[in-house]
Order: sequence, then C-alpha cells, then structure tokens
Amino acid sequence: MADFDTGLGRQAANFAALTPIDFLLRAQEVYPNRVAVIHGDLRQTWHETAERCKQLAAALRVHGISCNSTVAALLPNTPAMLEAHFGVPMAGGVLNALNIRLDVETLIYILEHGEAEVLLADSEFEEEVAQIKAALPDLYVVQVNDILGPQAALFGDVDYETFLQDALNQSDNWVLPNDEWDAIALNYTSGTTGKPKGVVYSHRGAVLSSLSMLLDWNVPLHPVYLATLPMFHCNAWCYPWSITAKVGTFVCLRRFEPNLCLQLIRDHKVTHYAAAPIVHAGLANASAEAKAGIDHVVHGTIAGAAPPAALLESMEQMGFEITHIYGLTEVYGPATICERHDDWQNLDIEARAALNARQGVRSNLVEGFTVMDPETMTEVPADGETIGELMIRGNHTMKGYLKNPQATAEAFEGGWFHSGDLGVKYPDGYIQIKDRSKDIIISGGENISSIELEDVLYKHPAVLTCAVVAVADEKWGEVPMAFVELRAGQTATPEQLTEYCLSKLARFKVPKHFVFEELPKTATGKIQKFVLRQRAKTILAVP
Amino acid sequence: MADFDTGLGRQAANFAALTPIDFLLRAQEVYPNRVAVIHGDLRQTWHETAERCKQLAAALRVHGISCNSTVAALLPNTPAMLEAHFGVPMAGGVLNALNIRLDVETLIYILEHGEAEVLLADSEFEEEVAQIKAALPDLYVVQVNDILGPQAALFGDVDYETFLQDALNQSDNWVLPNDEWDAIALNYTSGTTGKPKGVVYSHRGAVLSSLSMLLDWNVPLHPVYLATLPMFHCNAWCYPWSITAKVGTFVCLRRFEPNLCLQLIRDHKVTHYAAAPIVHAGLANASAEAKAGIDHVVHGTIAGAAPPAALLESMEQMGFEITHIYGLTEVYGPATICERHDDWQNLDIEARAALNARQGVRSNLVEGFTVMDPETMTEVPADGETIGELMIRGNHTMKGYLKNPQATAEAFEGGWFHSGDLGVKYPDGYIQIKDRSKDIIISGGENISSIELEDVLYKHPAVLTCAVVAVADEKWGEVPMAFVELRAGQTATPEQLTEYCLSKLARFKVPKHFVFEELPKTATGKIQKFVLRQRAKTILAVP
Repeated sequence: MADFDTGLGRQAANFAALTPIDFLLRAQEVYPNRVAVIHGDLRQTWHETAERCKQLAAALRVHGISCNSTVAALLPNTPAMLEAHFGVPMAGGVLNALNIRLDVETLIYILEHGEAEVLLADSEFEEEVAQIKAALPDLYVVQVNDILGPQAALFGDVDYETFLQDALNQSDNWVLPNDEWDAIALNYTSGTTGKPKGVVYSHRGAVLSSLSMLLDWNVPLHPVYLATLPMFHCNAWCYPWSITAKVGTFVCLRRFEPNLCLQLIRDHKVTHYAAAPIVHAGLANASAEAKAGIDHVVHGTIAGAAPPAALLESMEQMGFEITHIYGLTEVYGPATICERHDDWQNLDIEARAALNARQGVRSNLVEGFTVMDPETMTEVPADGETIGELMIRGNHTMKGYLKNPQATAEAFEGGWFHSGDLGVKYPDGYIQIKDRSKDIIISGGENISSIELEDVLYKHPAVLTCAVVAVADEKWGEVPMAFVELRAGQTATPEQLTEYCLSKLARFKVPKHFVFEELPKTATGKIQKFVLRQRAKTILAVP
Repeated sequence: MADFDTGLGRQAANFAALTPIDFLLRAQEVYPNRVAVIHGDLRQTWHETAERCKQLAAALRVHGISCNSTVAALLPNTPAMLEAHFGVPMAGGVLNALNIRLDVETLIYILEHGEAEVLLADSEFEEEVAQIKAALPDLYVVQVNDILGPQAALFGDVDYETFLQDALNQSDNWVLPNDEWDAIALNYTSGTTGKPKGVVYSHRGAVLSSLSMLLDWNVPLHPVYLATLPMFHCNAWCYPWSITAKVGTFVCLRRFEPNLCLQLIRDHKVTHYAAAPIVHAGLANASAEAKAGIDHVVHGTIAGAAPPAALLESMEQMGFEITHIYGLTEVYGPATICERHDDWQNLDIEARAALNARQGVRSNLVEGFTVMDPETMTEVPADGETIGELMIRGNHTMKGYLKNPQATAEAFEGGWFHSGDLGVKYPDGYIQIKDRSKDIIISGGENISSIELEDVLYKHPAVLTCAVVAVADEKWGEVPMAFVELRAGQTATPEQLTEYCLSKLARFKVPKHFVFEELPKTATGKIQKFVLRQRAKTILAVP
C-alpha cells in the first residue's frame, strides 16, 4: 500500500480557506466593467462595488473591527446592504443583519447579545436608532442615507459615504479568513422560547450553501437578480454571495411593491428572484397592465409554504418558473428542493401542484435530509404516512447558536439538525411537512413564535389563559389567531388587546384575530392546540 | 467581542468531508430512473449505475482493498471506467487510471511505483496484461469484456461481471472518506525528468474542481456528455464526477472517430464534450453529410492548444460553442478559462480568435493564476510583453507527487504551483502562454517529454548529441522533431532511429522527423533549443 499522506499535506499552493470573499475578487478581476448593482438611477460596476467593499473593510478596521468583531446592519436591500455582505467579512468581522421589522426592544437584545461594535443603519430608522443609542451608548452608528431613502440630517456617528471616503487610500487594508470555519454571519431566529437565538454561519458553510443553490437552481452566467428577499433573512439564502459568484446584477429594492417589481423585472430583464409566497402572490395578482411586456423566462424560488395550484398556474401563465424549496435559518436558508421530473409535465395542474407542494429532497451538497423518530433517531418508513421529525445534516448546517451550547447540543442531538417540523417521506424519497412541532407562524415570510405572543398576552391583567395558533390568510399566508379565556369579572375587547400587543410587539406579530372562549385542555391541563387549529378553521369558515 | 468558537465546532450535524461519491448517491436518490449511461445498445439508469458502483466497491473490499489501496485501470471510456471512478473510492481505494497508449515498460513502472493491488483491464489489452502479469505476478487482474470491445476468453484472474455478481448481496459494503484530504486518484504525468511522476488528488480537490468546471461551463441540469476525452487524462478533467453532480447522461466511447461522434451527438442530443484540438478539428473537418441533422447547441471545451480562427469559425457554423481552457495534470486538468465578454461578439472572427487564444483567467474556485518571475516570485507587469512563468494556487492543486517530496517541494516553491509554461499577462488580466519551459510536446492531446525522447536517443550507439523540439503539425497539433549529431564514423538513417525508438517508446512518442546536423550550443556547451525551434520551422517550410 502506497503512502498517500507523507509529504502530501496541505500547504499554500494546494489549499485555500473557502470564502465567499473570493467570489467578489474574481468578479472584479474578470468582469470589472459589468454592472453589479442597479438601484434607481445608480449603476455600479463590479470594479466599483469591490472597491467600495474594500473601503468599507478598511474603514471598519481603522475603527477597530477585526476577526470575530460583530458588525450589525439595520438596512433594507440597498447597495450598502450588499456591500456589508463583503465589506464586513473582509474586515475580519461577523455580519449581523437585523430584521428591520423587529421591535426596538428585541433589536437591543440582539445587539447586546451579539456584542455588536458597529451598526450600519439606514436613515429610515432614525427613531429606532435613537432608542438603541440610548440603551447602548458605545455602539458606533454609521448612517446610510440611501439614494432612494429619506435624506436625513446626521443622527449617527458618521455618514456611510464619509466613512468609506476616509478609507479611500487604504483599500488594501482587508483580510481573508484564517480558517474556513471562521464565523462570517450571525442571524437571529425567533426561537420558541422567548429570546431569539443567534445562528452562526462559517465562511465554508456560506461558500458551500451558495454553490448548492447555484446547482439547485441551475443559475447561468450573469443572472439579473431582483432583491425581493430581505438580506436580513438568512443573508437572503446566501444570494448576495452566490449571485456574485456568477457575476450577476443585483437590482436592489427597499420594499416590495408588486407593480414596482414587475416594472423592474421588465426594464432590467430580471431572470431570478426569491421570495415568500406572499410576494409571488402579489406578482401573480397584479393587473394585466402591470404584467404586460414581460416576455422572457423569470425563475423564482418559493419557501415558507407550498405554492397552491392556482398560484402555480398563474405564475406559469406569466412565464415564471417557480421552484419550491425549504429550509430554516439554521441551515443557511433553503437546504431542500422539490426537484421536478420531466414526466410531471404530463400531469394536470392540480396533480403537479400536489407533487410540487412537497418539501422534496436534499439540496446539492447537503449531506442528508430525512424524517426520523426523534426519540430513537431511526428513519420512518417511506410510506407517505408515518410522521416523524425532519432532520438535516452536512456542511449546510450552522456552526451552532452563539453563547448557547445547550441549545446547540439539543438542536444537533444524535448527529442531525432537528428542524422542529413534522412530516412524512413518500416512496419516491420526497419529504413533506405535515405539522410544525415548534408552533411557529409564518406570516408574510416572517417567523412568529406563538409562544412569544402568549407570553405577552399572559401579562395582560384580564387574561387568564391563552393560546395562539396559525390560521391561513389569503394575503399573508398565515396569521396568528389568539384564543383567550378572561379572568372572572374582567373584560377585554379585540381592539384593546390589539393595542396592548402593539405596545409590546413588532406590528407584524400582533394577532389578527381574537377569540374569547374556554380553551380545550387535556386531563393534565395542557392546552390542546391541534383542537384549536381545527376550531380556528371553523370560525374563519363562517361567512 | 463575542466568542464565535467555543461550543461552535465541527460535528456530525454540521460538517461532512467533501467527496464526489456524494454526487452519485444523490443522483441515485433523486433521479433513480434517468439514464446515466449510453453505450451501444446499453441504457443504464442512475439506480443501476450506483448499485454497480457499490458492488464494485464491495467486491474490491472483499479482495482486500481498503483506505489508500491503489486500484489501477487500463480501460477506454467504457461504463466500467465510469464505475471505477466511484467504485474504487467507495472501497476506500485510490484510482490509478492508466494511459492506454503507453508502452508496457512504462505501464509496469507506474503499476510498481503506485503499488497497485488490483488492475481493471479491458479485453483489448490481453497482450499488455500478459507482459504486466509476467513482471508483476501478484497483481490481481479483473478483466472487462466490454460489450463493444473484443470478447476474449478469460486471461485475467476474474471476469468483471462475475467480480460484481459475487458482491451482489454486499452492496452496502462501501465507505465514505475519513477525511476530505484523503487520496482519491493517482495520475501519472510524463515529467521532464525521465520517469513519470504520480500526481495525487484528494476528495476535496475532486469536489471543488468538479464544481469549478460546472461554474465555468454553466452546465445545466441533465447534460448529455459525450466521452471524447479519455478518463485516464486527469480523470477526464473530473467530468465523471461533475456530470454526475448534474445528473447527466454519459455517452461512452471506446475510441474517437469523427463520424461516429457526430452520429452520437445527433442521436443522443449530446450537449457537452471536452477534447484536445485534434478532436475538435476532426469534427469540424467531417463531411457535410456527417454533420447533417445536428440542430441543437453543443458545448465543447478545448485545451492543449488555442483554437485557430478557422477552427473556431467552422465550429461556430456548426452551432458548436467552444470554450478555451488550460491546465495540467497537477491542477486536476483545467484551472483557467478564457472567459468571453459580450463585446467580443462585435469583433471579426480573427480578432475574436486572437482574444480567445489566450489561456485566460483563473477558473471559479481557483485561488490564484498569475505570471511571475520564478526567481523572485514577483508578478510581472500586466503589459502583454514581460515573460514569466505561469503560476497557479488553491484547492485545485494536487496534494503532491507520490513518494517524491523533492519534486513536490520544487513544484510548490514559494507557495505557488509552477506550471513550467512561460507567458505574459495582458492589461485586461488575461494570461497567454508564449513558450514552454518544460520542453513538453503536446501531440494529439498527449504530453510527450522531449527529455524522455532524448534519453532514449542518447542510448543509441550512433548518437553523440541530440535534442528534441516540438514542431507544428496539421493533424496532431505538435509532433517531436529530433536533431541528432552522430558519432564520428557512425551512421544511422531516420528509418533505423524510428525503429529503434519504437522498440523503446509508445508509438505516439516516436519523433516524426529526424535531422542530422551539428547542434547550436552556448559558450558553456548548452544546446540552444530556441535556435532549434526556429531552425525546425525553416526545415518544414521547404517544399
């Protein structure tokens, strides 16, 4: 047996730490003059974009950011947000992209827990930043006056463009990671237990997840990508990195509006976008006038819920090809794909939609995706009936939860990431979700923890017992419905509870329905949520 | 600064060793019934192919193959050769694919040096195997009677189908690599110094090189790949692995014949192939009749020499899109690509061919490709004039040379792989070869070491001094021309030297031209090869 190890180790010539930073460097080298960013009237080439990212890195380093420093971003999908996805890791730092829809209290919790040293904040969030600064006076705020956003007077410590400008002559002051396992991003998930958890991504994971998505989606060279998906959601499923690898063009977007998006799709010949069902539905339901003139194929990915037959059909009529994918923050966004087979095209739309409604199979480069009994960690039979928990493993899974070894250990028990979703495996190997074990409500693409809502409601003086469940909603996919038992002698109206919730929670989390009645309980007093889910359907069915 | 390391390490749920074996497993899982292999009348699905690979792995393991055992293959591009690319690593072994055009003496050297324990041999090579067995009686020979090859009586130790059949009930007896740095393949290169060197590939490198090629070539789902490129050349640039990742179809091919290939391209709607210039020229020069009926786009990659304008033009007229790439065995085949720019399409064919003739820029996922002064290891200016040595670094580079730490250290000196090719860098960052420092002659896609030929010639009693250089050849690209100074009082004719060389060398290596004259030398007695290259052109120009 020959010795295949001695003298054959890793060294500078034959090993490099995987990092998405390299995607940017290559785009700049090979296609410097191609347009990287479209934003209003702005056209920014790959050379310009890369130079700005290098300046951002240098500016951050001058400000003290280095390996493992957290830099947070409170930004819509603007050019600055894209630049942060490269500039922060090129400073050695870890990007903590914040959900701009969160309430300030939660934002402060995240900034503190993640130990952010710098915050890049859009001028739209002047009010939030004032409150954040009051709570965290040491946080250094770089204010981004986006060209399409409100032009505010300086409320941060420095203006973004000035920050970059000051580093103009230092644009070689940036670094590659020491190790591909180094952290690149920190994304907080609304967990089931009160406080959000900080999911840590590595450079290696970001590269392999990016490549995985490119393989899954068969992305050609120079895609034109419309940024419908917020980059604060799992770093927009790694698209800021993967689209750069294919030297694409980013069409930025501060806020989703169907007609604006259709106009951008038409004007810039957008080829790819990714979004929650509500966004797809918004496009599908737009007027014929708004849709007119789009005569090229547009590829979309949909996650968060299966596309209903009607939606699938109208998207197909528009010439849109929609791929159904599934994932979670813990697996860098999507990690599974409902791969279509040629012979599905012979089926009618309902049958196709049913096959396509499944969460599918593991993505490329994902080691494993299966359904298991979480107690025994054995796979369920592929009979389409036996329910178990969806499990994922491989390079596509987070490093773990920041400063939470217990939660990490629980999530990774038995060598698999426990998704918290319950489902079945069909004889063809495809997997479908049947229920959620985590009581998460997905509304307009945002995760809402039913337990968080219940915690808030329980603090209201009139509430004796409560339970929140998801109910279907035409516009938002799902919305929270709260079932409330009032204390004897107390009263509360839906309006009062709505107002109360608004004072404690981000707007999108507030229950859309309140039902006052006795809650069904087990013999041991546990509220039977599955009964409430049925009950909710009955209530909504009443005309 | 937050702690992004503690409790956030690699574990089973979030880390898997990269390996191309996973491409096969996923193809089987997701598209079991798609055709993986076409060979004559044979149609083999991905399920069948994967099962056969697992059986091959089990059969090898039963025979004693385990981690780091070498399994050699003397096979044309048959289904068995494809299966060996998965079955051997799934046994834990290292695949040593042998150039079927080599002389037996060299084959024996390689088998001994690589410590091969098993040899998979096509029945076409009965004679060679007899000689090999005489020299290496312990080598276990598995004889492949390919359906399109000669049906020979058993001359090996076992027949391939019987070997697989015996492992039918053990098809779960296979393994994944312990570490992604483990060896997967061993490919011998005709070095500049007499003996071939064994280039070792890792699982990690094979995966990243495969993905690199998919990105470079923008390969969509389900490509139909015609196996024009021998899999014994750098494992056909990793195509056995990368095409599997895209769940493609392999159209196997024992031997290149232009008309047969055009027929296969037409019949099976081949979308992709890769080849040396001579193969492309063979297709381009075929009759209009042979080319008729191909009305889809065919993508080809060309390496080994730049495509001349005339070839590029006729390929374009056929609807073939040809991508020029460059590499060496040491970098898993191609590691650079001449990426085309949209505005090149506005240029005339000569200008386009000139731009396209360049070796280009680093491939996706290749860390670095540049031109350096090999003494100072500083980059040459990007002026299109200053000559230096082409250097490559990154995950795309071999582990090193087997049992040859000195050669490995020399090749990797200064943290870059020294290609041995000399060239320039243009202002747009594109690199072009201007000369070879290693005296390699590329003939019909095969590398021939001029030094190896000189070593043989020096052993002839009549030869006093000799030097071999490459000369252009319409059919083969390049062929060797030998300049010989005879010893006083000795005589030799071209015919005699040709016959002598045939007894010592593989047929394709034998010089096509012999010139008897005094050799130009430097003051210190070194033969001036650059003078001979000029002289050779003059000789050939004589009508």
